[in-house]
Amino acid sequence: MKEIKGTIASPKGFLADAVHAQLKYKNLDLGLILSQVPAAIAGVFTTNKVCAAPVLIDRQIVKKGQARAIICNSAVANAVTGEQGYANALKTQKLLAEKFELKAEEVAVCSTGVIGVQLPMEKIATGISKLSQNEGTAAYFAKAILTTDTQTKTINFEAEIGGQIVNMAGVCKGSGMIHPNMATMLAFITTDAKIAQALLQKTLSEIIETTFNQITVDGDTSTNDTVLLMANGQAKNNEILEGSSDYLLFKEMLAKVCQSLAKQIAADGEGATKLIEVTVKGAPNDLTARFIAKKIVGSSLVKTAIFGADPNWGRIISSIGQVANFEVSDIELKLQDELVLYHSTPVDFDAAFLSEKLKEDKIEIIADLNAGSGLGQAWGCDLTYKYVEINALYTS
Amino acid sequence: MKEIKGTIASPKGFLADAVHAQLKYKNLDLGLILSQVPAAIAGVFTTNKVCAAPVLIDRQIVKKGQARAIICNSAVANAVTGEQGYANALKTQKLLAEKFELKAEEVAVCSTGVIGVQLPMEKIATGISKLSQNEGTAAYFAKAILTTDTQTKTINFEAEIGGQIVNMAGVCKGSGMIHPNMATMLAFITTDAKIAQALLQKTLSEIIETTFNQITVDGDTSTNDTVLLMANGQAKNNEILEGSSDYLLFKEMLAKVCQSLAKQIAADGEGATKLIEVTVKGAPNDLTARFIAKKIVGSSLVKTAIFGADPNWGRIISSIGQVANFEVSDIELKLQDELVLYHSTPVDFDAAFLSEKLKEDKIEIIADLNAGSGLGQAWGCDLTYKYVEINALYTS
Repeated sequence: MKEIKGTIASPKGFLADAVHAQLKYKNLDLGLILSQVPAAIAGVFTTNKVCAAPVLIDRQIVKKGQARAIICNSAVANAVTGEQGYANALKTQKLLAEKFELKAEEVAVCSTGVIGVQLPMEKIATGISKLSQNEGTAAYFAKAILTTDTQTKTINFEAEIGGQIVNMAGVCKGSGMIHPNMATMLAFITTDAKIAQALLQKTLSEIIETTFNQITVDGDTSTNDTVLLMANGQAKNNEILEGSSDYLLFKEMLAKVCQSLAKQIAADGEGATKLIEVTVKGAPNDLTARFIAKKIVGSSLVKTAIFGADPNWGRIISSIGQVANFEVSDIELKLQDELVLYHSTPVDFDAAFLSEKLKEDKIEIIADLNAGSGLGQAWGCDLTYKYVEINALYTS
Repeated sequence: MKEIKGTIASPKGFLADAVHAQLKYKNLDLGLILSQVPAAIAGVFTTNKVCAAPVLIDRQIVKKGQARAIICNSAVANAVTGEQGYANALKTQKLLAEKFELKAEEVAVCSTGVIGVQLPMEKIATGISKLSQNEGTAAYFAKAILTTDTQTKTINFEAEIGGQIVNMAGVCKGSGMIHPNMATMLAFITTDAKIAQALLQKTLSEIIETTFNQITVDGDTSTNDTVLLMANGQAKNNEILEGSSDYLLFKEMLAKVCQSLAKQIAADGEGATKLIEVTVKGAPNDLTARFIAKKIVGSSLVKTAIFGADPNWGRIISSIGQVANFEVSDIELKLQDELVLYHSTPVDFDAAFLSEKLKEDKIEIIADLNAGSGLGQAWGCDLTYKYVEINALYTS
């Protein structure tokens, strides 16, 4: 398996495009992913009870398990928009289906942006009419889905699976925010692997737990969060079957794609200057390890300490203690590979030296709880003045 | 029942004092509350698995249910200090008992401040030797327990209960933070009411749920959080019995004291410019209402929007949706008494006018979920540049 350069349309049989539909002032804002043949589609959605209209539609598509296209707009979230919002999402689906001669129920729809505002359907219609199946425009897609993200987020892998080179591509946006909205995370993954939809969904659901669900920028879950994964079989590999070595490789590739995208989102968190990676070892089980890791990386006190390059280990230990449901009396803690706590006892360390190391743009926190073999990781970012500025100063 | 001026020693039979034991550079740092007769003592403690040495001791005292004194130091938390820390807490207890001819096991011990540092026992001993039973120094206690709090936090009430005037006094500290530590909340309540210890504990535990447990500054729970309540019976009232009208009045007084202290902590949250009060109505039950209220008031997105006086209702609705485990399709939402959402549909409102109202120093958010009769409140503060500064810039 190796990482390669590419776009979301690099897997065989996929095309992608994007246009400026005038939802944003001047940037690309309407993107398309199209599979030339029907693809198995798997998806995972926000658990927010207030979910956007497109999420309702996509849940149905994933339930049926087959799709040809994904249409995604930025700038307007189509959330808290009532019946008209739902009708607009259906209309978007229909317009795209007509344009490319697809069935409407094979078109997934995604939106990210302002809450409580209706989609401007004339602009959407005009935008859709301009989308094409030309090659060479696939890289635009990654730009069209951004809101206040500072950079595009993509990843491509290939591996030999079932006798063929199988490609997988991922693109996502996250942590951007548009007034009056909250961060939305959207991720799209394409692969030309041949794999049954049920297994695809099972694998995605499993991997989400250790990747996208382990990032946090500000602890809030959006109304629109969506991960969609399409597999169109055009690599012509022998079908990937559960339990096979091919499956393990495919699963590893999907995990790498999801982890890469998740970390890119964390690193581009609003106002972030540093990516924080927390590894918890020695927990009673993996689930507990992940839970503790996420608590640490989500702690405002830890996040501000990291911003200030302050080796403030007390805050990390306190985070562990808050969520541990077992004895934590033998903790070993490392910051940037420097030991600061051993057998739960403070270790003398060179604070100035460690503070310098905490100025790097990737911060590693490793806690060994010596209470089992559970392992978990989580990713986040520091909490900065810029975060407050971005989120406070819309109207004033 | 009425609010009165007073100190923690206003209830009959209590004395209080504080000295500068040189734990802090120059401010009061060692405080004493003393009951002239044995008092029933109730307590509630941090759920953090990493808890400080004094918490271990106080849990035992509350289990026995009787105490004469509380000794509290600031500057050093005596947390993550191992066996020596525990021995130092016992020594503190013993020194105070000797000084005032008490039994050691009737002296509760509290600490707040730096984690991972041992108490300087010579300074503690010298400090204790200077504590006196003089009157007139009781107001000092509220100062001695502060860390980076910007003001003292006290409240006094009196009511006629069981044929006598019963006094209740509360003092607390919270949201302060000293390197390398996290916020600690300590609250002490005294009353001269006559009430059995078991009922006292039951009442305190119940009221904590709707008061101290409903405030959040940054979502972190300290290793040292402690609420202690002493009742010494010196009002000579007829004993307060469960189910009586006297009990209801006593409970109401305790609730008022706890709510007042909790709100004072929230308003003095690190870097805060505004107190935020969230009221959730129409939830399936009170517990759910409280949970949702706390989620809203703890949301970084809501907190920054309030700081920026931004009427960003989408973030509030999203917070509700994240934690609701029932249908939320008919929400009515008011900010500063202005309706912004009705039947889950956006209402046209004057954003500039509302933004002006959001510049006040108390912000009220009221959400009616129309899904039952559950009611809950929570309190917090805005998230500001100052918060980031306080918590980031210790070492740099």
